[in-house]
Amino acid sequence: MDPRKPFDEFRKLQETIHAYDHAMGLLYYDGDTTAPSASAPGRGRTMEVLSGVQYDLAAGDRARALVAELRAHPEALDDRERREVEVFARDLDYTSSIPKQEFVEYQVLVNEAGDVWHRAKPANDFKSFAPYLEKIVDANRRFAGYYKPEDKPYDVLLGLFERGLTMEACDAFFSALRREIVPLLEAVTAAPAPDTSFLHGTFPIPVQRILSDRVMALMGVDRTRCAIGETEHPFTTGFNKDDNRITTHYYENDVLSSLYSVIHESGHALYDMGSGDEYEYTCLAGGVSMGIHESQSRFWENLIGRSEAFCGLLAPILRELFPEQLGSMSARQLFLAVNRSAPSLIRTEADELTYALHVCVRYDLEKALIAGDLAVSDLPGAWNEKMKTYLGVTVPDDTRGVLQDSHWSGGAIGYFPSYALGSAYGAQMLAKMKESFDVDAAVAAGDLRKVSAWLEERIWRHGCRYDPGELLVRCCGGPFDPSYFTRYLKEKYTRVYGL
Amino acid sequence: MDPRKPFDEFRKLQETIHAYDHAMGLLYYDGDTTAPSASAPGRGRTMEVLSGVQYDLAAGDRARALVAELRAHPEALDDRERREVEVFARDLDYTSSIPKQEFVEYQVLVNEAGDVWHRAKPANDFKSFAPYLEKIVDANRRFAGYYKPEDKPYDVLLGLFERGLTMEACDAFFSALRREIVPLLEAVTAAPAPDTSFLHGTFPIPVQRILSDRVMALMGVDRTRCAIGETEHPFTTGFNKDDNRITTHYYENDVLSSLYSVIHESGHALYDMGSGDEYEYTCLAGGVSMGIHESQSRFWENLIGRSEAFCGLLAPILRELFPEQLGSMSARQLFLAVNRSAPSLIRTEADELTYALHVCVRYDLEKALIAGDLAVSDLPGAWNEKMKTYLGVTVPDDTRGVLQDSHWSGGAIGYFPSYALGSAYGAQMLAKMKESFDVDAAVAAGDLRKVSAWLEERIWRHGCRYDPGELLVRCCGGPFDPSYFTRYLKEKYTRVYGL
Repeated sequence: MDPRKPFDEFRKLQETIHAYDHAMGLLYYDGDTTAPSASAPGRGRTMEVLSGVQYDLAAGDRARALVAELRAHPEALDDRERREVEVFARDLDYTSSIPKQEFVEYQVLVNEAGDVWHRAKPANDFKSFAPYLEKIVDANRRFAGYYKPEDKPYDVLLGLFERGLTMEACDAFFSALRREIVPLLEAVTAAPAPDTSFLHGTFPIPVQRILSDRVMALMGVDRTRCAIGETEHPFTTGFNKDDNRITTHYYENDVLSSLYSVIHESGHALYDMGSGDEYEYTCLAGGVSMGIHESQSRFWENLIGRSEAFCGLLAPILRELFPEQLGSMSARQLFLAVNRSAPSLIRTEADELTYALHVCVRYDLEKALIAGDLAVSDLPGAWNEKMKTYLGVTVPDDTRGVLQDSHWSGGAIGYFPSYALGSAYGAQMLAKMKESFDVDAAVAAGDLRKVSAWLEERIWRHGCRYDPGELLVRCCGGPFDPSYFTRYLKEKYTRVYGL
Repeated sequence: MDPRKPFDEFRKLQETIHAYDHAMGLLYYDGDTTAPSASAPGRGRTMEVLSGVQYDLAAGDRARALVAELRAHPEALDDRERREVEVFARDLDYTSSIPKQEFVEYQVLVNEAGDVWHRAKPANDFKSFAPYLEKIVDANRRFAGYYKPEDKPYDVLLGLFERGLTMEACDAFFSALRREIVPLLEAVTAAPAPDTSFLHGTFPIPVQRILSDRVMALMGVDRTRCAIGETEHPFTTGFNKDDNRITTHYYENDVLSSLYSVIHESGHALYDMGSGDEYEYTCLAGGVSMGIHESQSRFWENLIGRSEAFCGLLAPILRELFPEQLGSMSARQLFLAVNRSAPSLIRTEADELTYALHVCVRYDLEKALIAGDLAVSDLPGAWNEKMKTYLGVTVPDDTRGVLQDSHWSGGAIGYFPSYALGSAYGAQMLAKMKESFDVDAAVAAGDLRKVSAWLEERIWRHGCRYDPGELLVRCCGGPFDPSYFTRYLKEKYTRVYGL
């Protein structure tokens, strides 16, 4: 037999799976962006059919037999092909551990839950969402047990988003962060805060839409391959290198919220769009983990986006688009204002210093939910308590509390730690980047292509070729070290607050 | 064997097909509304996979065997179920007559052609579009031959949009129309034209978006089941009763263009959304033919939308939203202006009198293209000539000429006559409706629900239960008679122009 034949069939299978992933991804995206509000049940019926086929393709007998055959003859494959088989097999092992009926029901459940959450959030109505979240928590716990019955369920879930991540590692990471952040935050809170009063005003949404276009252009986002839409909660999705979508949420009285969402989501999109052409339509295309993904989005949002050099690029655009509101704002004023640190209610709008504390809240709660130590009905109270403990803030309602994020409604439990991890990965990458060239000078000169090229070469183009740990070593020359991040925070806030 | 078993399987099969239709429909919709411009090839790959499955489901061995089994035992089914089998079988006969490879390639082709047309139209670049249109014309001619080799190909295509329609019927219909319209248009052209100068101005698009919402509300479009988007060419699509989409195109210097597009497309959406619940997820759901569909859209656009009573509802909304531009406009002024008749370049913006002449141009050209009497490369010249003959206008460029409509790029050849037919069906329905209640009085009172209820009872709720001819007889008490339409035009324009 031709030893390449199984591999050719394997490639063909991946292309077929890709078509279903595209259709399912588009159904979700459409549900969040454009679809009318009563459309969820009909979309659920379609998803039920398509996800059943997805399951059969990705985890059915033919897929298993192919993987077994390919693994039996590793010599017929090159390194990259062997990696492809292994990455595919991981998904197969996970998916096939779940009974098909439950897999399909779960797709239908998260579609419905997303719909319910969309109405529950603005209505401050946790009760209507709770039964869905209960089912999602149960399903996640069950799926973790099917997949790796010997492991703790929340460890399994963490590993789905960041291979190898465990509660033990998270606990160590988060306490290291808190050790540095808490005293720094105390010093910052005691110091005079930068002025942000000039940001108060009305910023018409049509003009904010133009601002999105301008900042995406500045970052070099190829708009022929990336569209922008509007949703309750900003996110990024993509179907292939040439078809990516980011979303944002405009608030008329807050120009920074959408601006930094757009920078963040564009960071995700750049990563996906920079994946190597040779990986397209295989399981190696796109980002390798949520931690690395967030490292890219938060790199742009914070390490670049909240740098003084980048504020020097933003300020003239903001002055031009909002002459009445911001006509006299200097770059320095903007830089200080976007780095004002204060405990707050909303994660996506938190400054870099308090951000990790928002993640800690979610991490603790997810851990307790999955362990069965916390009932969904007690979640709002527990949320408010944790917010008080970690951030010292009083949560006024569930809209700005436990209902603020879309992740849980979409079934993503174990995702949040990726944000903090990504922030820390990013700081380590920035330190390495600075060995190659003067990053601040390049940004100040508007030469963001230099930043992109560095990231593309070391991160983006590799797709899922390497596991996150290995990718980081290849990129930074050493294993993950969170002290880059804490040093970065200390230096930055010392400078901003003149500590 | 349980005689109901094959029917249960038949229903299940239709539900599965529906899921693929939903996914494919959404891919097209997304491609037209939101997707970034480079996304067409990737979408084409996905469509290739999904349309192959669509083909197998709708025209494969299992579907054939099921239909044969169900037909062999008609006594096991009730009337409605037998109709369901027959409607399904028609599609099956058509689809299965086309070789699968060609069917799939055609889906990919029209996705690509749509993309090319989107760029060609604004660029006035017919040359880039021509090779795609050639392939589309060839495929349509070939498909017609596969399906009904004994019939003339263009007759076959006409019948796909309006069952039973032929060139012979169209020729008779269009010459009857022209016989009445041409002298009427001459009289109108000689009379003083209504003033439209007050409509000149700038109408900001964000406010036009609000106008769309207001007019959809006025028409009773349930927005929880119908969204609105923006495209180069307005259209309506739907995936089930609870998930419908209309689109429009806003022009800043023309408030009527989008306004009447929204009314037209809402008419389509109302029809689809009014289809009987009992038909959902079967082949009997939704509109029965494009002629009946256009009868509903053009009913709202013209018979209602351009009536003096409806202008009485529109005028205060327009005055409120555009106080500077239209603050002093009266309902009477609006009524006269929207009924100004003059030969023009753009079909979708044509008045009721000249509209059918635009359709005649397309009908003649399609007929010649499919007969092989006209080459695609000669189409722009032939278009311009026909526009001169029928409407007396000189076409300045292909953007406002042969490239103006999206239909051919989407593979719809034989569709255009439905517009004229629909206009005439609508006039016959209006005459019948007037026997039931005072339509003008109801509209003037803002009681559009009365109009909807009448149409819902007689047209919408029947889905595809009856063929168009039978539906018309059931609705109007007699067969199709175009003289209702010509009488309507004569009365209306005599009144507007004081002839």
